[in-house]
Amino acid sequence: MAERNQQLQSPPEDCKVAEKIAEMSVVDKVPSEMANGGVEDNSDVVTPWNVESNSETGIDYDKLIQRFGCSKIDDELLNRFEKITGHKPHHFLRRGIFFSHRDMHTILNMYEQGKPFYLYTGRGPSSESMHLGHLIPFMFCKWLQDVFDVPLVIQLSDDEKAIWKNLKIEDAIKLSYENAKDIIACGFKVEKTFIFSNLEHIGNNAAYYQNMIRIQKCVTFNQVKGIFGFGDSDPIAKISFPPTQAAPALSSTFPFIFKNWKVPCLIPCAIDQDPYFRMTRDVAPRLNHPKPALIHSSFFPALQGSKTKMSASDTNTAIFLTDTAKQIKNKINKHAFSEVVQLWKNIDNLGEIGYTSGEILTGELKKELIEILQKLVADHQERKNKITTEVIKQYMLPRDLGFVVKSK
Amino acid sequence: MAERNQQLQSPPEDCKVAEKIAEMSVVDKVPSEMANGGVEDNSDVVTPWNVESNSETGIDYDKLIQRFGCSKIDDELLNRFEKITGHKPHHFLRRGIFFSHRDMHTILNMYEQGKPFYLYTGRGPSSESMHLGHLIPFMFCKWLQDVFDVPLVIQLSDDEKAIWKNLKIEDAIKLSYENAKDIIACGFKVEKTFIFSNLEHIGNNAAYYQNMIRIQKCVTFNQVKGIFGFGDSDPIAKISFPPTQAAPALSSTFPFIFKNWKVPCLIPCAIDQDPYFRMTRDVAPRLNHPKPALIHSSFFPALQGSKTKMSASDTNTAIFLTDTAKQIKNKINKHAFSEVVQLWKNIDNLGEIGYTSGEILTGELKKELIEILQKLVADHQERKNKITTEVIKQYMLPRDLGFVVKSK
Repeated sequence: MAERNQQLQSPPEDCKVAEKIAEMSVVDKVPSEMANGGVEDNSDVVTPWNVESNSETGIDYDKLIQRFGCSKIDDELLNRFEKITGHKPHHFLRRGIFFSHRDMHTILNMYEQGKPFYLYTGRGPSSESMHLGHLIPFMFCKWLQDVFDVPLVIQLSDDEKAIWKNLKIEDAIKLSYENAKDIIACGFKVEKTFIFSNLEHIGNNAAYYQNMIRIQKCVTFNQVKGIFGFGDSDPIAKISFPPTQAAPALSSTFPFIFKNWKVPCLIPCAIDQDPYFRMTRDVAPRLNHPKPALIHSSFFPALQGSKTKMSASDTNTAIFLTDTAKQIKNKINKHAFSEVVQLWKNIDNLGEIGYTSGEILTGELKKELIEILQKLVADHQERKNKITTEVIKQYMLPRDLGFVVKSK
Repeated sequence: MAERNQQLQSPPEDCKVAEKIAEMSVVDKVPSEMANGGVEDNSDVVTPWNVESNSETGIDYDKLIQRFGCSKIDDELLNRFEKITGHKPHHFLRRGIFFSHRDMHTILNMYEQGKPFYLYTGRGPSSESMHLGHLIPFMFCKWLQDVFDVPLVIQLSDDEKAIWKNLKIEDAIKLSYENAKDIIACGFKVEKTFIFSNLEHIGNNAAYYQNMIRIQKCVTFNQVKGIFGFGDSDPIAKISFPPTQAAPALSSTFPFIFKNWKVPCLIPCAIDQDPYFRMTRDVAPRLNHPKPALIHSSFFPALQGSKTKMSASDTNTAIFLTDTAKQIKNKINKHAFSEVVQLWKNIDNLGEIGYTSGEILTGELKKELIEILQKLVADHQERKNKITTEVIKQYMLPRDLGFVVKSK
């Protein structure tokens, strides 16, 4: 696996010779063990479309870090974070929910030197109601935005969902707007946040399509086959998509925000999205842009066990943001202690849980968790209900976010 | 070859099952002889990127009609054309410059019944100065627009040129504007003509990107491999492109012109563009649109001989629209009689040339042709020089062209 990353992050090559190099089969050959979307025999399956562990103990994140060639978030990084930002690291960081990164030290250096950067995250809106797992990157992003006070762009990849889930274009756009409400309810600063639907925005931003073409020119079919496991029978919609997710990591995709400054980017996302950004990190320098930095979360485990992640397609695996107090109570009471403890660990910011590993979660503790979750979901619903069409439009309007690069 | 067309034009399939079908390897398998862009051993090479004949007598167009599965333009069609439109067929039709078609009878039926349709043609702007060969489809289109009095959309596929010729995005857009001038100089009615640069317009028209995704969902990599000869080492920019050229054949790509009417389309183009539209004709019914009709021109032969077409990349093969009177004179005098007669046949609308096949073109006749060409090019240059930036903007502004579907 190190081989792939070596290839993908090989010294910048001029895009103009990419074709020639491709012909020479130097860059675009991918070792055969990569041909199935980065899956090795007996390893966990982690692709943007499938997360599955073959082990009872769930995904082996340390192994994943090795396979993907990223870096573990360690105490040194957390200490540096606190020292430089003056903020105690978020409990998602302290508890290892966000566990891995690429170039976070570079971002901290920039913050330390007063240099600008921005945040980019996203969501593929596959269902009307989001679940708690979907909130994790957004809750964390909101906190990062508060700490760093930087612009944030949020991609709703409704085109991806129209392709993979075979949704009608119109229905996919509707889901984007529905999901935008849940995202806005996390409390992002409207004056620093731009949320966009691919299906609407790409046709409203010539720089975006132009960057898609620039990126598409730098990546061969062999490469996306190796990175994402695409095959010859796949619709070309799938093959064409990765640059669409890559483009927002280049600041020139949003000239109305970043003018013609080349601004570095930090991407908080779940680790299954890393393949997109390994590709992006390979391409960005060839297009005279900095490589985006990344900070990866683990998956929110399903209530059925930690072998899979919470899924929006299976209503029983997750606590949904539309669940009633009663539904939450039933789901928690019904499920095994280890998953419920995982859930607790993920959402709780209140210190000790009063639980020792291996111990059965007492009825008392379950009750406490139920109350926490009921309040969290009810509060979210209350905030969401206040979000009008007018407010959504404000976030989704391409506009100047007051971003300036100060000359030193 | 008949096999491919059979496959491509098989009964409409629901796009929703395209993936499943692809998995079943029913639709997306292409016979191995198709794998090189439709090239058979010992046959002429005719792809959108390469035209080359292995025969001294040039491209065998009758064979091409058979291979591509289109229909020859015969006297019956020409007579019907004259009867229905009241116009004598253009000399490009009478002299076989436009020699082949798909569904022209359907278009004539529609015209006869007063039903609406539109014209779509295009150009990949690969050089600043166009040559006479480039003008053929536009001169013909202008005539068709006058005869039928219908809207015309003209695609400048600068994205394609940025990909295949490795141009910078900015430079490709500049070429679009330069070529738009030459096109406008052909005399299109501004009130019925929309000219667009892909690199600018796709980012200014959400319906366009949405149709690209719809089309991309219907076509597998195996299919574009078979149709266009793409390989695994090709950049995904190439693989993604065919739907971009297909989309304007669906009226829903231009809601500002066609509202939500499903309007049939007639595409005049050189025969090397047929692969794009075989694909389009396969996909259109699956997206509830009519199959576009086509009318194909032969290639404008190079001055060096009819084995290749005029090329913008080799200044000696063609009469350029920027050539001086002296350059034209030298080129005609320098080259062999047969190619010069071809040229004459293509541009002349004045009746008999006074030439018998096999005869050496006399100095007198060459002189006459030189005068005709000098006048044609000088007139074009004069019209082109009058075209201001303001005029170009008028043609290239997405706008209502006053198109309405009258209810019967």
